[in-house]
Amino acid sequence: MNPLVSVIMGSTSDLPVLEKALSFFDEMEIPFEINALSAHRTPELVEDFAKNARRRGIKVIIAAAGMAAHLPGVIAAMTPIPVIGIPVKSGNDGMDALFSIVQMPPGIPVATVGMNNSLNAAILAAQILAVGDASIAKKVVDYKENLKKKIAKANEELKEIHYKFKTN
Amino acid sequence: MNPLVSVIMGSTSDLPVLEKALSFFDEMEIPFEINALSAHRTPELVEDFAKNARRRGIKVIIAAAGMAAHLPGVIAAMTPIPVIGIPVKSGNDGMDALFSIVQMPPGIPVATVGMNNSLNAAILAAQILAVGDASIAKKVVDYKENLKKKIAKANEELKEIHYKFKTN
Amino acid sequence: MNPLVSVIMGSTSDLPVLEKALSFFDEMEIPFEINALSAHRTPELVEDFAKNARRRGIKVIIAAAGMAAHLPGVIAAMTPIPVIGIPVKSGNDGMDALFSIVQMPPGIPVATVGMNNSLNAAILAAQILAVGDASIAKKVVDYKENLKKKIAKANEELKEIHYKFKTN
Amino acid sequence: MNPLVSVIMGSTSDLPVLEKALSFFDEMEIPFEINALSAHRTPELVEDFAKNARRRGIKVIIAAAGMAAHLPGVIAAMTPIPVIGIPVKSGNDGMDALFSIVQMPPGIPVATVGMNNSLNAAILAAQILAVGDASIAKKVVDYKENLKKKIAKANEELKEIHYKFKTN
Amino acid sequence: MNPLVSVIMGSTSDLPVLEKALSFFDEMEIPFEINALSAHRTPELVEDFAKNARRRGIKVIIAAAGMAAHLPGVIAAMTPIPVIGIPVKSGNDGMDALFSIVQMPPGIPVATVGMNNSLNAAILAAQILAVGDASIAKKVVDYKENLKKKIAKANEELKEIHYKFKTN
Amino acid sequence: MNPLVSVIMGSTSDLPVLEKALSFFDEMEIPFEINALSAHRTPELVEDFAKNARRRGIKVIIAAAGMAAHLPGVIAAMTPIPVIGIPVKSGNDGMDALFSIVQMPPGIPVATVGMNNSLNAAILAAQILAVGDASIAKKVVDYKENLKKKIAKANEELKEIHYKFKTN
Amino acid sequence: MNPLVSVIMGSTSDLPVLEKALSFFDEMEIPFEINALSAHRTPELVEDFAKNARRRGIKVIIAAAGMAAHLPGVIAAMTPIPVIGIPVKSGNDGMDALFSIVQMPPGIPVATVGMNNSLNAAILAAQILAVGDASIAKKVVDYKENLKKKIAKANEELKEIHYKFKTN
Amino acid sequence: MNPLVSVIMGSTSDLPVLEKALSFFDEMEIPFEINALSAHRTPELVEDFAKNARRRGIKVIIAAAGMAAHLPGVIAAMTPIPVIGIPVKSGNDGMDALFSIVQMPPGIPVATVGMNNSLNAAILAAQILAVGDASIAKKVVDYKENLKKKIAKANEELKEIHYKFKTN
Repeated sequence: MNPLVSVIMGSTSDLPVLEKALSFFDEMEIPFEINALSAHRTPELVEDFAKNARRRGIKVIIAAAGMAAHLPGVIAAMTPIPVIGIPVKSGNDGMDALFSIVQMPPGIPVATVGMNNSLNAAILAAQILAVGDASIAKKVVDYKENLKKKIAKANEELKEIHYKFKTN
Repeated sequence: MNPLVSVIMGSTSDLPVLEKALSFFDEMEIPFEINALSAHRTPELVEDFAKNARRRGIKVIIAAAGMAAHLPGVIAAMTPIPVIGIPVKSGNDGMDALFSIVQMPPGIPVATVGMNNSLNAAILAAQILAVGDASIAKKVVDYKENLKKKIAKANEELKEIHYKFKTN
Repeated sequence: MNPLVSVIMGSTSDLPVLEKALSFFDEMEIPFEINALSAHRTPELVEDFAKNARRRGIKVIIAAAGMAAHLPGVIAAMTPIPVIGIPVKSGNDGMDALFSIVQMPPGIPVATVGMNNSLNAAILAAQILAVGDASIAKKVVDYKENLKKKIAKANEELKEIHYKFKTN
Repeated sequence: MNPLVSVIMGSTSDLPVLEKALSFFDEMEIPFEINALSAHRTPELVEDFAKNARRRGIKVIIAAAGMAAHLPGVIAAMTPIPVIGIPVKSGNDGMDALFSIVQMPPGIPVATVGMNNSLNAAILAAQILAVGDASIAKKVVDYKENLKKKIAKANEELKEIHYKFKTN
Repeated sequence: MNPLVSVIMGSTSDLPVLEKALSFFDEMEIPFEINALSAHRTPELVEDFAKNARRRGIKVIIAAAGMAAHLPGVIAAMTPIPVIGIPVKSGNDGMDALFSIVQMPPGIPVATVGMNNSLNAAILAAQILAVGDASIAKKVVDYKENLKKKIAKANEELKEIHYKFKTN
Repeated sequence: MNPLVSVIMGSTSDLPVLEKALSFFDEMEIPFEINALSAHRTPELVEDFAKNARRRGIKVIIAAAGMAAHLPGVIAAMTPIPVIGIPVKSGNDGMDALFSIVQMPPGIPVATVGMNNSLNAAILAAQILAVGDASIAKKVVDYKENLKKKIAKANEELKEIHYKFKTN
Repeated sequence: MNPLVSVIMGSTSDLPVLEKALSFFDEMEIPFEINALSAHRTPELVEDFAKNARRRGIKVIIAAAGMAAHLPGVIAAMTPIPVIGIPVKSGNDGMDALFSIVQMPPGIPVATVGMNNSLNAAILAAQILAVGDASIAKKVVDYKENLKKKIAKANEELKEIHYKFKTN
Repeated sequence: MNPLVSVIMGSTSDLPVLEKALSFFDEMEIPFEINALSAHRTPELVEDFAKNARRRGIKVIIAAAGMAAHLPGVIAAMTPIPVIGIPVKSGNDGMDALFSIVQMPPGIPVATVGMNNSLNAAILAAQILAVGDASIAKKVVDYKENLKKKIAKANEELKEIHYKFKTN
């Protein structure tokens, strides 16, 4: 099945940051692809990728990069597809990457999520796909329901901790 | 015609920041609505809005807020619709709003754009709508082409500035 | 005995940060409760909690959260009870949480203490309870006296370190 | 009538920052006093003030200071009364004052509000007084209701702005 | 005469920042050209420029950009010519641009100068040209001598200010 | 009479920042001199100055500089006289100058005061001179007493403001 | 022999930061004392210390503190003796302590050195004592000469590292 | 063969940061030398070095330093040779060094690269040498081609990781 989401990293060293996103897509059964493409070291490959992504059926692009993180913005400049940027905490505690991704000039937005927060990038991608796909919309709603149940269960376990404190 | 995009501001004092977004939607003929809703001062209205947005046909939400900018995240927690956050530069030069919007916990993404950059929020909204709407996709492509022409024209004008320097 | 203080954390992973607060309440014999409630993942539970806290006899709320830490502000928006916020150092070295908690808009204050400083949150809660409760007031005064004695004793031990340096 | 709240500023140049707090107390008919006391230039006066405040019937102290803003912490060290700190934006855009006020060592909390946000300091003071005073509690609840109405009214006015955009 | 230095700006609004650089080249009689090219809005023009610059005889490139300032890095990725980057103070007081320009990944350096400091970019360009051009080397040395004389003269004028203070 | 304090600025544009220091020395009748010397543009003059200052009877040096503010550290490296550094707010809101002055490597201290705070530099210089000069010590004590009186007087004036609020 | 320098720490946990200062005084045979005094937990002891230091023959005070580091400023407010402040990196990577120490209000300077840099505090203290003491002045000059020799020797060792690289 | 590049570090503890630069020069067969010279502890040696570098045939200088990193700027002030500065992350996470190196005053540029990024400093040095040396220019081009191949190969390896995820 053709991938709907393309996950790009600036360097293969960013792969651990992306694991939660990839697991999410597996769990949701949303077809995806992954690539390592550097805005600076392989600009022609980035250009080929960006210009052909739409024609190949890609609907959303996720790009993770650290330091002077140009990759998400450079891709966004060459495709009308929504680009989600993940600032990787590899340089100045992530501030360099956050600024380099979120402060795009007027005309070329990058949908930025939190530092190293690839799970949120993946959920956002699913929410965007859901705009035109009812089955993915249902998956997103179910996923959020499950999150609530986990918190509720964690809260139950807290009660026992409480008793421990109260009986000290 | 029913609005596809809902533009929310935390305070009516944020309206000037949103003007470029509203003009973009007018120009692109994308139906939208605007509301002032405070995550802190009118939490029930925010909840009503967020929980009914999808049923009302809203496809994308844009939320602008400054300081401890909770509005985008609070809305995102109560709807599966993609939420775009605009950090407003009203507190600590926008850093407080940027952190409050982009650093969402795993599970609840907000698609953050640059400080005060409502134009990018609007273009991103159009790109998301375009995932499931070919006519909006065409508008986005045309819009980006026009941007390039403006830059090319500005470059021509620079040549004359250059001559001025060279003849001093 | 009914709890006077309700301690809320945004995630159970914040529990270690709260231990000093819980021990303080145990030591002071101030009745309290603890809960894990996420502003983003369980907004309805937060609302139930916040709207009923006063009726249940809660006098002060302590809320700890990290990253885009909306929990204290969201609770403060739905109750007239004083809310104390603890920024947790889990994101950008705590700056994201500090800004998200302290920079609340005019009308909805959160009484913010230092990063991860749950002991100060607990003492502040006791000081607030003491406004209307002479026995708690006495406990606060005694606690502060003990702090001074510990410092005085530590200073005595320093003298010996001093001699070590002087005889090298 | 004896003041319940004492409002202290580090320098008379901080008075404009405090105006919203003073107006709030006037409007709420909560008796208060104001003083200028410098932690550094009049340390003895600060000590006299802090040590006698409780005996004089003061229930809450608000202290505003800028730069290396020691005043709130120094007062908090000498009284069991809750101290609310307001970081004033006079030095490095308020970051110096925020850090100097909020990052207190374990044992001596200061309830910190946002930069220059004296209104929130005043509301927080009222909320603390309300813990032991039902009439002030009622005023706080009424005040918050009024805030909501103002937002709702502002939202109505936005509708007209919307029409303007839609008819351009 | 063919230009040796190419001065690129991300937007014509950056032109005032560049004036000191252009005046320096005029004064030093170093042939240059100026262009406005956006890494994001005209990526193909940037690519054409970067790939042909060396063949056209350009020896050094100066690129100024603000916010998520990708222009210098994107050009550096596509040419072996040294690229000097000027962070423009248009976004978060220049920190976004500084990080986006200086924190390049290993392999693609950008020679970064201070915020808005186009004069230093121009002098650095001259110093680089001087590596292979004795006449430009002489100009650089002379220019630095003149700077010293200006300071020495300014110091003389200070003596009179001194007398004013001493006779008050 | 020979100057005891030498006040150095990196650029004559820093003179307004120094006015409070110069007025203080005039008022205290402490002999001083002023010079403009650039660590970068006139390094030889800085070296001459630093190496001869002690022989000429200078007891304390005050150096003000902005941006990459090397002047205080460079002077401190070449003289055993205490050097007081004033970070000037001319670059990134003073943070660049503060870091460049205070973060000296082990072995070469600079006594750093607050941003633009030349009055504190001058008072510190007087306090250092007072270590070996009883008449200057007396002046410092008197000066601090006067500061307290000014605050006390300002406080009296506040009372009237208070009445205004109470009668509104 | 009476101490000339008094070294104060806000908490005994800051002792490791001070070791280089204490070793320096031992090596230089400058008599000193050490104390742990908290501006917040033992304000009366701080006041006793500060008000009697001069009478007891103390010439310079070194105060180290972290987080909202009020200790150096509070001491400086109560004595005409020069106070050297050391920001301890225990809170927000030292920025909180640096701001709390260096940004003192006009009238009360603290001579701030780099984060955790107690050696520089000690050398600065020696330089201040040297203003009125020729034997200490000689020690300072000798110490700085030794520093240069260490660097020169380290440079010799580098030559061998160089050969290693050149023969790879 | 005479060195073309001189690599200077402020302290031998900075040597590990420089290893990638030294390996690059070895691999490229570009003759270089290394020295440890402190702007503060051995100012005379720095002056000797800087003033004689050009006469000795040095074409580019690389200077690495941490904290208040004056070394690159001090050298740049005394030679017309291009100086490349490397901010070392030894103080406040590298921000102190970055500001101290990049924010040079108008007239004395330092070509700053990213924090600890000595490889980029070395590549930039090679690019500068290439302005007047065709054989080095060829090496730079070949080096960049190799970088692209490494990324392409890494991307191939990613495909296998992808399969792992898809089959879980």
